Amino acid sequence: MHAGIIGGTGHEGRGVAARLASAGVPVLVGSRQLERAQETVAALGTSLALGAATNEQVASDCDVVFLAVPFSGVAELLEAFRTRFRPGALVIDLTVPLTFDRGVPAIADVAEGSATEFIRARLPVEVRLAAAFKTIPASALAKIDTPLDCDEFVCGDTPEVSAAAIDLLSRIPSLRLLDAGGLQSARLIERMTALAIVLNKRYKVRGARFKMVGV
Amino acid sequence: MHAGIIGGTGHEGRGVAARLASAGVPVLVGSRQLERAQETVAALGTSLALGAATNEQVASDCDVVFLAVPFSGVAELLEAFRTRFRPGALVIDLTVPLTFDRGVPAIADVAEGSATEFIRARLPVEVRLAAAFKTIPASALAKIDTPLDCDEFVCGDTPEVSAAAIDLLSRIPSLRLLDAGGLQSARLIERMTALAIVLNKRYKVRGARFKMVGV
Repeated sequence: MHAGIIGGTGHEGRGVAARLASAGVPVLVGSRQLERAQETVAALGTSLALGAATNEQVASDCDVVFLAVPFSGVAELLEAFRTRFRPGALVIDLTVPLTFDRGVPAIADVAEGSATEFIRARLPVEVRLAAAFKTIPASALAKIDTPLDCDEFVCGDTPEVSAAAIDLLSRIPSLRLLDAGGLQSARLIERMTALAIVLNKRYKVRGARFKMVGV
Repeated sequence: MHAGIIGGTGHEGRGVAARLASAGVPVLVGSRQLERAQETVAALGTSLALGAATNEQVASDCDVVFLAVPFSGVAELLEAFRTRFRPGALVIDLTVPLTFDRGVPAIADVAEGSATEFIRARLPVEVRLAAAFKTIPASALAKIDTPLDCDEFVCGDTPEVSAAAIDLLSRIPSLRLLDAGGLQSARLIERMTALAIVLNKRYKVRGARFKMVGV
């Protein structure tokens, strides 16, 4: 299995790359410019199983493709890349349609209901889609020596697609992956990202994340 | 201070009544019919500081009024009650505009953005409004001998209003109240209720609730 990250040099993307590689999953860090991907791989440390690639290469070559670009760039990116993905590839969407109004985070209205459903509408049917890592702050992901000690919520096209994503991501120690149902659950999950940012600001922390009690 | 619950005989309302009364806060359990309120008070146990009242009495007599009716009944209720509330009273909204589509929970579109903002638009300006207890399942609240061991998210008109609600609710042991900002945060919090229900169904539990890590 080859895993790669489109937008792997961004805060969230590089955090996921570091966590997966630390767990022994080789990851291709993608960027628009190969040089930037190479810089990120070097910065994350040569002891990790990371490679550098262009975003195009990640889309073409990987069986599991994390989509970690800003939501504002997703439409254009998928327009350019949609025919590149491998049939049967698993795309894992990390995007959140965040907006800020005078410093207060909110979720932009997306006609499809959520960023994940927006992406589903623009991916070929033979490409599978799940969502994950929407609620864990990049700053928490980045500290790979600090256990995450939290839950993350996964939703997918079907229970089988969610299970495939959960199976991969469960290799990250100290993270519990919870199956949150179909893609429409992204409408719920994306808003939790905004709440985590509200709490980060209010309590002057950077790593607010979620854990379920009673599950 | 007098606290009371409009809709105190429903699942969520009686759970809040039991938790508050167990913490030593006397609570008026309100219902449309006084007899039903009396039945609930008797069922919850005579050792608790609970009284029975009509919903009208709760609105007229209490400084803190929990609104625990189904969201579908809120508009009519506020139309009838809006002039009854005391000036300066604190209304704490527990409602969630839940809908179900073939068993999958979702949040209904509310023009104001959330149930709490819907209520704000229908309350006199001199009545203060906060939201709380939107995400904790009634079944977890009901088991008063079991610690909640979770967080709950409070939002309010102003930081002072949120602080007043948090101050009261902090008397419940094993519950941490987090200040989640202004009323627009209800848009985020209400969707977490739907997610908790998704997880309850998926994992065959009844008490899924939230705890923040890193805060």
